[in-house]
Amino acid sequence: MSDITPLDKVGEFGLIHRIQNTITLQQPSTVLGIGDDAAVIAPAANHDVVVSTDMLVEGVHFDLTFCPLKHVGYKAVAVNVSDIAAMNATPTQIVVSISIGARFSVEAIEELYEGMRLACEAYNVDLVGGDTTASRGGLTINITALGQVEHGKAVRRSGAGPNDLICVTGDLGGAFLGLQVLEREKQAWQADPETQPELSKYPYVLQRQLRPEARMDIIHELRDLGVVPTSMIDISDGLASETLHLCQASGTGARIFSENLPIANPTLEVAEEFNLDPIMCMLNGGEDYELLFTVPLSAHDKLKNHPDITIIGHMIDKSEGANLITKAGQPVPLRAQGWQHF
Amino acid sequence: MSDITPLDKVGEFGLIHRIQNTITLQQPSTVLGIGDDAAVIAPAANHDVVVSTDMLVEGVHFDLTFCPLKHVGYKAVAVNVSDIAAMNATPTQIVVSISIGARFSVEAIEELYEGMRLACEAYNVDLVGGDTTASRGGLTINITALGQVEHGKAVRRSGAGPNDLICVTGDLGGAFLGLQVLEREKQAWQADPETQPELSKYPYVLQRQLRPEARMDIIHELRDLGVVPTSMIDISDGLASETLHLCQASGTGARIFSENLPIANPTLEVAEEFNLDPIMCMLNGGEDYELLFTVPLSAHDKLKNHPDITIIGHMIDKSEGANLITKAGQPVPLRAQGWQHF
Repeated sequence: MSDITPLDKVGEFGLIHRIQNTITLQQPSTVLGIGDDAAVIAPAANHDVVVSTDMLVEGVHFDLTFCPLKHVGYKAVAVNVSDIAAMNATPTQIVVSISIGARFSVEAIEELYEGMRLACEAYNVDLVGGDTTASRGGLTINITALGQVEHGKAVRRSGAGPNDLICVTGDLGGAFLGLQVLEREKQAWQADPETQPELSKYPYVLQRQLRPEARMDIIHELRDLGVVPTSMIDISDGLASETLHLCQASGTGARIFSENLPIANPTLEVAEEFNLDPIMCMLNGGEDYELLFTVPLSAHDKLKNHPDITIIGHMIDKSEGANLITKAGQPVPLRAQGWQHF
Repeated sequence: MSDITPLDKVGEFGLIHRIQNTITLQQPSTVLGIGDDAAVIAPAANHDVVVSTDMLVEGVHFDLTFCPLKHVGYKAVAVNVSDIAAMNATPTQIVVSISIGARFSVEAIEELYEGMRLACEAYNVDLVGGDTTASRGGLTINITALGQVEHGKAVRRSGAGPNDLICVTGDLGGAFLGLQVLEREKQAWQADPETQPELSKYPYVLQRQLRPEARMDIIHELRDLGVVPTSMIDISDGLASETLHLCQASGTGARIFSENLPIANPTLEVAEEFNLDPIMCMLNGGEDYELLFTVPLSAHDKLKNHPDITIIGHMIDKSEGANLITKAGQPVPLRAQGWQHF
């Protein structure tokens, strides 16, 4: 970026004005967007509104040393859309709050919003409001996403029964290994600023970490297939943690077969390079933003050959607990590792 | 508070669990609250949903040296409800994100949520979701509020016409002067920690600053009176700034009569003590969270004797500009001072 305009030169209203000018509305349910005390939405008849919120903090959730602001913006929207998808709903609107330290330029913030704009376009979502304020430190982004789903058709975490099949979309562990690559290269660069970071060898895992996609495509496909999940959650903290959430909410146990866990070849290669157990990366890595869901046994034939859905296990009675079944047939209790922020 | 439990002792899920246990749901439109990927809301038939979001940053919007966390929580909800009120809508749900540094205890965060709980009770709003994360610095709170309004009945900033009366609720300048008192006492205390802060003399302005109320009461009264504002905004940045927003959105000018501006006696006394012009405090002080709205001339008789609504001027043609008319009859252009965060 060649232009650098200090924030105090345009002020809060000036910044909002510049951002507002880049936004177009495409959702039929958006009655009124940015520019009033609140946005106005007219939900479709006989539809419920779902709402989810996520806060991303610089230095905790993202590191601007290696993460371009455009990607931060895209990811911030995608992870919220992912929560809406996990309710079996369609995302419709977002509102965005940011607090920014004085070191950010107007152009940097415009990069951030450009990433959000691209994600809004990709997911057919309108940015309808927000708040822009100063911070004493780094960048904090909060996005609240709204979606709609036919009345009574939201899929909760709590609807699974024993014998339901446990399915996961895409593949796992990539986002976590992308982070390992970025942190290694950052350390090398900090030790010797002359070092060129070696990133071009790892396009897949870096994309998984820096620019994840919400699986709205699967939500639409399941509708087309006539398959309604009995429970669903998106994978932000890791497969183990999310499986335990479904079990706890549904009052079931679970058996996940380690042999069935989906991993992409590039992810596997990076795991080997880092001497990390690929199974642990898939179970506890987190940030893959794939969907984890259960379906009745009767859906087996519709899903068994789906190229982007893997049946990884099944629910069982609560008394059996939630276990990973190893290749050798040994049960190992699943544990919620997830992220320890505090 | 006698108990001090470090955050890392209970972790993110433990903290959410403790907060969740204090929450009760009272809104008929809330289908599903905290505990899933998203909350589910069933809006009333033929109603629009309004949505507003606000971020409060420690050291920018509040100072924990003199502001108890319970008040911070209450105010965070009230200012969001105020935005919903300013659309002529009824608040229904909020989602709350917080990022917290390691110096906060579990009990401190519970105080914050207790303030939010009290405000939810006062405004009949459900806390239906949120996000809790770590920060490298202080406390940041983001609240997104949802409300409902009969389809097509949201009041925007843009509906005023020339000759419409300009009205304001309550009185102005108090929150700003409350802040002056707090900052003076803080400086005295920093200079000499033995000093006892002198706060008991200023209950009114301190209450205005620390624990403002959203004027939902006025929204209900206007409905009862059959008065529909043509435009409306809440006063967060100051009367001058908000009047200019209404004028810009509505394509009008405005005449505000300085003689008509409402100020409470305790506010006036503090202004005198601080040698501050009361008119400037009312125009540019901000944070009063009163409602500024316009009504057709025909509503004059219904509002002229209302104890809590003051007619302070009227809209005029855009070409006349937006002016304060002094006691001597001189027009002085209104200027948006507001808050300069950056």
